[in-house]
Amino acid sequence: MELINLLNHTSEWLKGTGPNADIVISSRIRLARNLDKVAFPHWADKKHGKETLAAITEKVKKIDSLQGITVFLLAEMDSVDKQFFVERHLMSLEHAQKTDNKAVAIDEEEVLSIMINEEDHIRMQVMQSGFNLFEAWNIANRIDDFLNKELDIAYSQDWGYLTACPTNTGTGMRGSVMLHLPALVMTRQIDRVLAAIAKLSFTTRGLYGEGTQASGNFFQVSNQVSLGHSEEEIIENINGLIRQIIEQENQARDLLLSRNRAMLEDRVNRSLGILKSARIISSQETIELLSMIRLGNDLEILKEISRRQINELFILTQPAHLQKIENKKLSSMERDIKRAELIRKRLNLIL
Amino acid sequence: MELINLLNHTSEWLKGTGPNADIVISSRIRLARNLDKVAFPHWADKKHGKETLAAITEKVKKIDSLQGITVFLLAEMDSVDKQFFVERHLMSLEHAQKTDNKAVAIDEEEVLSIMINEEDHIRMQVMQSGFNLFEAWNIANRIDDFLNKELDIAYSQDWGYLTACPTNTGTGMRGSVMLHLPALVMTRQIDRVLAAIAKLSFTTRGLYGEGTQASGNFFQVSNQVSLGHSEEEIIENINGLIRQIIEQENQARDLLLSRNRAMLEDRVNRSLGILKSARIISSQETIELLSMIRLGNDLEILKEISRRQINELFILTQPAHLQKIENKKLSSMERDIKRAELIRKRLNLIL
Repeated sequence: MELINLLNHTSEWLKGTGPNADIVISSRIRLARNLDKVAFPHWADKKHGKETLAAITEKVKKIDSLQGITVFLLAEMDSVDKQFFVERHLMSLEHAQKTDNKAVAIDEEEVLSIMINEEDHIRMQVMQSGFNLFEAWNIANRIDDFLNKELDIAYSQDWGYLTACPTNTGTGMRGSVMLHLPALVMTRQIDRVLAAIAKLSFTTRGLYGEGTQASGNFFQVSNQVSLGHSEEEIIENINGLIRQIIEQENQARDLLLSRNRAMLEDRVNRSLGILKSARIISSQETIELLSMIRLGNDLEILKEISRRQINELFILTQPAHLQKIENKKLSSMERDIKRAELIRKRLNLIL
Repeated sequence: MELINLLNHTSEWLKGTGPNADIVISSRIRLARNLDKVAFPHWADKKHGKETLAAITEKVKKIDSLQGITVFLLAEMDSVDKQFFVERHLMSLEHAQKTDNKAVAIDEEEVLSIMINEEDHIRMQVMQSGFNLFEAWNIANRIDDFLNKELDIAYSQDWGYLTACPTNTGTGMRGSVMLHLPALVMTRQIDRVLAAIAKLSFTTRGLYGEGTQASGNFFQVSNQVSLGHSEEEIIENINGLIRQIIEQENQARDLLLSRNRAMLEDRVNRSLGILKSARIISSQETIELLSMIRLGNDLEILKEISRRQINELFILTQPAHLQKIENKKLSSMERDIKRAELIRKRLNLIL
């Protein structure tokens, strides 16, 4: 599989299907694993880093529960390619920074991504559309069983899986759910909701993980604790919280529809009007306007565009995606012009 | 002529024709006249006010240089009708406030409006599209000659025409020109230009005359001095200033086109996109967006809409016009919804 093929492909997490796909964009399970008696990546010297990469790569290529596993070596990728993977949520920003003996493996449906020599030797992520953590866990679990059989994974009877950072020790699992909460933002209830989430020992992040701000009303909620509970317990815990947030977002949407329908229709239609006519548009503004279009689609204010088409615009308008489409490096201003062009073309085709 | 007939009629000043009609919306000559030996309106008692109204009305109806002169008695108009006239620039805000023995006469092309018993007994205004003060003066002069022949007008050999406010004494004339200066605003040169105008003893006002703020980049420039110069000298003076402002606006437009074309196309197209999609829109926002559309039309960025169609939208979206169209009183929120509806309908018909 070539990286460029991904351009015309909709990642699993962008399909806009699955349970509660109106509010839950995607569900993600991440597992941190390390080889036994091998220094963690940050402490490993070049020789050991190379050996680790080779050993894991060999086994990862043999995973047969998913189609078309390809391993991309970061040293062979330019900065746009790396950013392209970050935008598709296939690898972390941190992983893209230093490229020595690092790789990322993905399957052709982009359900799985395995970062090799990130903070841990293995950072496996399984994504599913909609509210579907258990399904993501089932897939991850099968792959984890395979890797545990093929590799000597660091595991302690007392502590569970050993990880570079002690906060990941235990299950080594993080479950996270990407939520679209425009109505809670518009009705100004979001701060209360985020405060409640924090009190329950969950973390909230923006579209692009740790350190990124919430934009376009997207919030990624994940567990902080991975020790002392089974994977199923942790997932059930997250699910319980997410069900409550979904309920509150739905109530806020009903409230907007019953009390502020005209205002809502105005905002949704203006957002579409701007997207269809702008000649220069930033990535940030695009996300915010698409967020309104997505809400309009959920509430049947807009009926001409599918959720999948909106989701695709979120990703295609990202900086590296635009540069891959144009097949050249673009300045920030050039991107803003090309982004507006692409949006107009897509929306006028659809509408 | 019924007031309602005006709704489907484009006032002379909105036709978008005449010299420099891209930058100069309209040219206006206003003459202040009073009956000799009759108290000015603010000092006159009811009986004298009534006599004055009757005497002037009789003669005004006989003006034969324009078609279809109709006299509207303010006492017989409701508040929406009065506001409707103000929006069409047929009478002043002040004239609409107290209605005793007041009237306004207009011809069917809305070239002429004569306010009776405003600050002066007679306030005659002649409007022309584009940069055309001399033509407006010629029309006003003919009507003034007629009224001078038919009525005993207060005139002093030393002072000229006598008026309620001494600043109008002399010619009793004010010439004013409504300018659309978006490029001077966008290139932040407008404050310098306005300061220069003020230094030259001209005044600048907004769309609706004295005390109103400039909005939508519209500026009304008029002379302050009406004494000590002939009408032709005063007009030549204004014309000289206006020619300079036109030149500067044109230079600013060229600058925007050569240096910021993408930004300009973005603003113009976004403005059209918002107008075509908004569900709630204020009068203020409408004027600002239409101003951008008008500039886009002038610069051939938008080619689908004519200047006249844009000009008509400026007036039809005003509060009283919307209420006359709907034939009922509307709350502010209802107007904002109806305004958006009307704009969408008109722009989708055109485009």
